[in-house]
Amino acid sequence: MKLLVVGSVAFDAIETPFGKTDKILGGAATYIGLAASVMNVKSGIVSVVGGDFPQTDLDMLSDRGVNIEGIEIVKEGKTFFWSGKYHNDLNTRDTLITEVNVLENFDPKIPASMQDAEILLLGNLHPGVQLSVLEKMEKRPKLVILDTMNFWMDSALDILMEMVKKTDVITINDEEARQLSGEYSLMKAAKKIHEMGPQFVIIKKGEHGALLFHEGKIFAIPALPLEEVFDPTGAGDTFAGGFASYLARKKSVSFETMKAALIVGSAMASFTVEKFGTERLQEITAEDMNRRIKEFKELTTFEVEV
Amino acid sequence: MKLLVVGSVAFDAIETPFGKTDKILGGAATYIGLAASVMNVKSGIVSVVGGDFPQTDLDMLSDRGVNIEGIEIVKEGKTFFWSGKYHNDLNTRDTLITEVNVLENFDPKIPASMQDAEILLLGNLHPGVQLSVLEKMEKRPKLVILDTMNFWMDSALDILMEMVKKTDVITINDEEARQLSGEYSLMKAAKKIHEMGPQFVIIKKGEHGALLFHEGKIFAIPALPLEEVFDPTGAGDTFAGGFASYLARKKSVSFETMKAALIVGSAMASFTVEKFGTERLQEITAEDMNRRIKEFKELTTFEVEV
Repeated sequence: MKLLVVGSVAFDAIETPFGKTDKILGGAATYIGLAASVMNVKSGIVSVVGGDFPQTDLDMLSDRGVNIEGIEIVKEGKTFFWSGKYHNDLNTRDTLITEVNVLENFDPKIPASMQDAEILLLGNLHPGVQLSVLEKMEKRPKLVILDTMNFWMDSALDILMEMVKKTDVITINDEEARQLSGEYSLMKAAKKIHEMGPQFVIIKKGEHGALLFHEGKIFAIPALPLEEVFDPTGAGDTFAGGFASYLARKKSVSFETMKAALIVGSAMASFTVEKFGTERLQEITAEDMNRRIKEFKELTTFEVEV
Repeated sequence: MKLLVVGSVAFDAIETPFGKTDKILGGAATYIGLAASVMNVKSGIVSVVGGDFPQTDLDMLSDRGVNIEGIEIVKEGKTFFWSGKYHNDLNTRDTLITEVNVLENFDPKIPASMQDAEILLLGNLHPGVQLSVLEKMEKRPKLVILDTMNFWMDSALDILMEMVKKTDVITINDEEARQLSGEYSLMKAAKKIHEMGPQFVIIKKGEHGALLFHEGKIFAIPALPLEEVFDPTGAGDTFAGGFASYLARKKSVSFETMKAALIVGSAMASFTVEKFGTERLQEITAEDMNRRIKEFKELTTFEVEV
């Protein structure tokens, strides 16, 4: 299956307790496209960058098999830029700078070569843009995956709810699930979110793993325990990218396949946090992924008989 | 294997968002003894109660196969009493009353019939008492399991560290692991705690599951997602009791057996929180346990191939 990705392609400047970066390559769609390339899945990105965006980064994506025809370049504009500083526990961060730039008036265009994508992954972005991409698809994709965050719940709830209604799989974190549903219990939150539209609800719990809910069934995984998280930026995007890419690769959108896809997404995200930005994601191979998935199996497999 | 349990046998008065109780049966050793009886494991309790403790509760334990010879009755004394109120999220609570009573001068005595116990579970209690029980064993048990909490880290750290040094398996929660080790990363915390003595470190994360560390190996489980936690009192004790009982039943203290024991402890604790105090634990059967363990398997089993 072909994977169409919508999301930012951007610059980040990151500060963690372990160091800081200048402007480096970032953006939800970048992480997702890289994840797809690790999985050898054909993907295409719909996004926008400014004239300041390096051709080398576009070439890097293209060389890895990511279709970049849908990345518009606004020559006179500047690329979206985010700068943030993580606190010591790396679970919280302060945003220092957000320059929306060319994303402000982003009018997404889907290249003809990607109109037949069967999986559409709407990476974290304004829900109005996400919705317009879905509407521009000539044929509704087999699976629509939505990644979003509390920022849009606070600032664009109505249109977000419209988007959620048209979604098959939603991925949000535990606090966001609680905010969106008004329920503290994640079981109850998932039920309410089901009722809003998505048949599949994925709740990400960071270092505590993730939950997948579908028609009364639940699947739960712990996170791979890491000695050190170096930079959490892009972990959620990588997770969504790994998840969607596994489904695309297996040509299946069943609950059973999604269980495995949750493992793949988590395994891939555990690489992303090991270095700054997309650095680690650009290094890893399918071999590395297989090793880490094996670790996941060892971490979670048990035999019990009472 | 025979299981010797040391811990409080007590009264609790509990308030949760769902209701409140008068003085009801509680205490770490009570939960652990009940857990052992569900698993059909021979256990004995070393504890102390006052003249106000109902004979019917002692009979109930005895009828379930718990050896109560080691429960001293101080006729003129009063039983340990704890009263607490849980906050709305049920993750935090305020202690309203603590009456130490007969536990103040508790001098544990191990009945001759329990001197051959191969597993010693030191339930949450003053580490000095825990240590004295270990010293009173004529032969060191095959496995010493220690359950403790932040209260003793704050008030009796030196003797706690002495106790930890002589422990094979320690069970503590994530915040306590961080406090004891001074490390935020649970991987690093477990390593430091290993160096303090225990070969096996179990870190309980409540609704996020649990981790087992041993010689560089890790096993992780999520918690069974529950729609509603009714009363968390005794969940940690039940977990320790289910864990130790499974090892006793399987006559094995290997890492592989401990992985399964972690599942059993979690499954049993998931029953305890469904009703007030020990009520649910007194109802369930081996059949109920098997059903819930099956749910755990469904919750966590996956097939993945990249």
